[in-house]
Amino acid sequence: MQQNLVLYNTITRKKEEFKPIHEGYAGMYVCGPTVYGDPHLGHARPSITFDILFRYLQHIGLKVRYVRNITDVGHLENDADSGEDKIAKKARLEQIEPMEVVQYYTDRYHSYMKDLNVLPPSIEPRASGHIIEQIEMIKKILENGFAYESNGSIYFDVPKYSKSYDYGKLSGRVLDDLLSNTRVLDGQQEKHHPADFALWKKAEPQHIMRWPSPWSDGFPGWHLECSAMSTKYLGEEFDIHGGGMDLLFPHHECEIAQSQAANKKEAVHYWVHNNLITINGQKMGKSLGNFITLEEFFTGNHELLDKSYSPMTIRFFILQAQYRGTLDFSNEALQSSEKGLQRLMTAYSAISKIKPDNTAETNTSGLAEKCYKAMNDDLNTPMVISVLFETAKLINEANNGKQRLSETNIAEITKLFETFAFEIMGLKNEEKQNDDKGKTDELIDMILNVRMDVKANKDYATADKIRDELQKMGVVVKDKKDGFEWEIQ
Amino acid sequence: MQQNLVLYNTITRKKEEFKPIHEGYAGMYVCGPTVYGDPHLGHARPSITFDILFRYLQHIGLKVRYVRNITDVGHLENDADSGEDKIAKKARLEQIEPMEVVQYYTDRYHSYMKDLNVLPPSIEPRASGHIIEQIEMIKKILENGFAYESNGSIYFDVPKYSKSYDYGKLSGRVLDDLLSNTRVLDGQQEKHHPADFALWKKAEPQHIMRWPSPWSDGFPGWHLECSAMSTKYLGEEFDIHGGGMDLLFPHHECEIAQSQAANKKEAVHYWVHNNLITINGQKMGKSLGNFITLEEFFTGNHELLDKSYSPMTIRFFILQAQYRGTLDFSNEALQSSEKGLQRLMTAYSAISKIKPDNTAETNTSGLAEKCYKAMNDDLNTPMVISVLFETAKLINEANNGKQRLSETNIAEITKLFETFAFEIMGLKNEEKQNDDKGKTDELIDMILNVRMDVKANKDYATADKIRDELQKMGVVVKDKKDGFEWEIQ
Repeated sequence: MQQNLVLYNTITRKKEEFKPIHEGYAGMYVCGPTVYGDPHLGHARPSITFDILFRYLQHIGLKVRYVRNITDVGHLENDADSGEDKIAKKARLEQIEPMEVVQYYTDRYHSYMKDLNVLPPSIEPRASGHIIEQIEMIKKILENGFAYESNGSIYFDVPKYSKSYDYGKLSGRVLDDLLSNTRVLDGQQEKHHPADFALWKKAEPQHIMRWPSPWSDGFPGWHLECSAMSTKYLGEEFDIHGGGMDLLFPHHECEIAQSQAANKKEAVHYWVHNNLITINGQKMGKSLGNFITLEEFFTGNHELLDKSYSPMTIRFFILQAQYRGTLDFSNEALQSSEKGLQRLMTAYSAISKIKPDNTAETNTSGLAEKCYKAMNDDLNTPMVISVLFETAKLINEANNGKQRLSETNIAEITKLFETFAFEIMGLKNEEKQNDDKGKTDELIDMILNVRMDVKANKDYATADKIRDELQKMGVVVKDKKDGFEWEIQ
Repeated sequence: MQQNLVLYNTITRKKEEFKPIHEGYAGMYVCGPTVYGDPHLGHARPSITFDILFRYLQHIGLKVRYVRNITDVGHLENDADSGEDKIAKKARLEQIEPMEVVQYYTDRYHSYMKDLNVLPPSIEPRASGHIIEQIEMIKKILENGFAYESNGSIYFDVPKYSKSYDYGKLSGRVLDDLLSNTRVLDGQQEKHHPADFALWKKAEPQHIMRWPSPWSDGFPGWHLECSAMSTKYLGEEFDIHGGGMDLLFPHHECEIAQSQAANKKEAVHYWVHNNLITINGQKMGKSLGNFITLEEFFTGNHELLDKSYSPMTIRFFILQAQYRGTLDFSNEALQSSEKGLQRLMTAYSAISKIKPDNTAETNTSGLAEKCYKAMNDDLNTPMVISVLFETAKLINEANNGKQRLSETNIAEITKLFETFAFEIMGLKNEEKQNDDKGKTDELIDMILNVRMDVKANKDYATADKIRDELQKMGVVVKDKKDGFEWEIQ
């Protein structure tokens, strides 16, 4: 097994060999959902991308601590920090306690992640559960001179930070450009500079999510939680930070600045970003109103959908593109994924039907090597899938007598599917769940055909026995002129 | 529908009519799990008891906010506050971050609750996520003079509190008795009185779960979280506080004292406690080492178990006793629950087979009344179950022609099952899910027995055909001396 995993590091703009800080261990932080609405296709991509990375790091022998947060407070409505909290807003709309909104959508998120076979992270910290840690981090940033208080709120001082460090190094944005592009918005008079961002916001009297702090009763700015929680659970320096490309700026840029300003360290060694899913080339997102929720995919209940798509179809669709490539939604693409996945699963089931021929000289050991090479090359899942398709073809040919496979070949391709399709890519055979029902029907048909044979042989005792045994199981058989009918009661 | 629900209130030692503080709404707080181990039968009882209450309150038309916490910090090893935190201890044992332990067991708890068809609460706050709220509450208690600092830790002053209020009113314990029965233990020298309990503990240097506070870097005492979180999400006064009877003292007694000392109010209107599950008359619990986990019940993998028991069998077993009665575990009792539940589910399925006779004069409208009466009488689920058994008998008699039922009768008994068995008692028909799989196994066995017969008749062609057809379906048959074995591949 090759272990030299290479990842594209957004901050260096290069593919780099992954070398963990502590040999044998990997720490990974990924930005999780803001729980004020149902997850849509745009949420599925990062969760599946980093699930693959989590699975693969473990597969190559690392002990991984995977932290994925729940943003349940402080997600301001826009970058201008106008003080509108998405979760509190939703709670006011529905006249319930914000934490009820949080609980409801967190539970639903977990349930959809389970459907998608996304493994739970090692730690799933909530922003509201780490207010103290965020306050402590603000204190450090203030002490180090990179933030200022303004009317009970604390802002990060971007121009001051920029004198010592490179604000924009991740996103490639230049501060002067930021300045000229920033609109003036309400509440910004508190800030010394339009590029500054909130670390702590003083709560308006009507604001329901609030905590005491040395500066005011208020709530933390959104960017802060990830810096505070990654530091707490992974340390001031850790291996991998992941998230969607849409978070690159300002969120991740601000995280870098916060950690640097507080801990005087570059926190993250590898920045990994998945690309977005588009609909007709347009970004998908709640704020754009063009999103399709996962539930809508699973039920087919959305005007853009021709039919329902199973969780594994969605997963397979996402894995058919390398995570850094764009992925455009269409019914055609999903239906082709559905068929492709079916093809793989059918081939896997057909492995057991191959009659081994130990004189075969087919080489199948190279297949796993190809898959490792693909995974090691920045998680090239489409390449892994193409190797699996190649293998599926081999299986079908073997079953059609066009190819000979030895016991070793068969063992190798079985292991290939188990390792890459199931363990690493986390696919599941959904067919199988419906299979038992299918098998029942098949078995009843088969035994009734046997019954026809024994009747033809005038073995009526056996024929009657079969009928009676089926009856006991609630299968009622009706003899017909040229065959039979049956019904389960 | 009758709405005069009566609950036994532990603190008044009387059955009282439930009158919510705000008409149309109910607030309920229940002590949830300490997530440092797998849930066992002892955890199933409170979660199911309060699930029934949650479901019933909603059924009678109330909007319920149900808060059930996750204790993920500060659960001291014993009442003596020796400073050993169960979760941190487990984390040290397993050499992982405490929050990883928390996440792992929280995820498992959720999964088992889902198996038991226990609804998620409206809010599930974590103790570690409410350190600020706990610190603020301590400040209030200090301000009001009912606590003192000692060496960086804060203790609740029980004797002082007892001068103004009745410490022991819930449990019926008398302070003087408490005094004479309290052993002297390490670390108690910090306390002024042996009955005092910790609100905040200064952390030893090696203690990993710690937060800054005005008094020391430390962590909250276990009793405090419930007072702080119930106040936050339900208010200083709320309707119902539930939990197992084992929490009555000291935990709930301390909660009363804390809320009273901080908010100068009696927080809880109705204290509801479920009784415990015993094994041969002995309390079940992690610390006693005689517990059987839910997983062990579901798999049958425990020396005390004759077989596995499904989640619904466990649920039904628990509901067959009124929640305040003791419930003693035995294989016989569980097997009888299993059969009873099966009987109800079979009867429910058989409703559709009844041939309605509209001349029937059977009265079935009284059945629902009886069930409401039972539920309203302190959640008398065994009585509800006995009405369902009565109804099952009626269904069977109707199918055997011994009883006539009209369309109205049939509609009423269908609704009775839907309302009481499924909606309120939360039972599910597991048979249905396992049916297909079960049938497959049964069919294969039957077919292979037929094959033995035809072989005995020397009809080898049919015997071979059966084997080959099964093989095609992925069922591999191995012939044995005196029978067969088979395996699905």
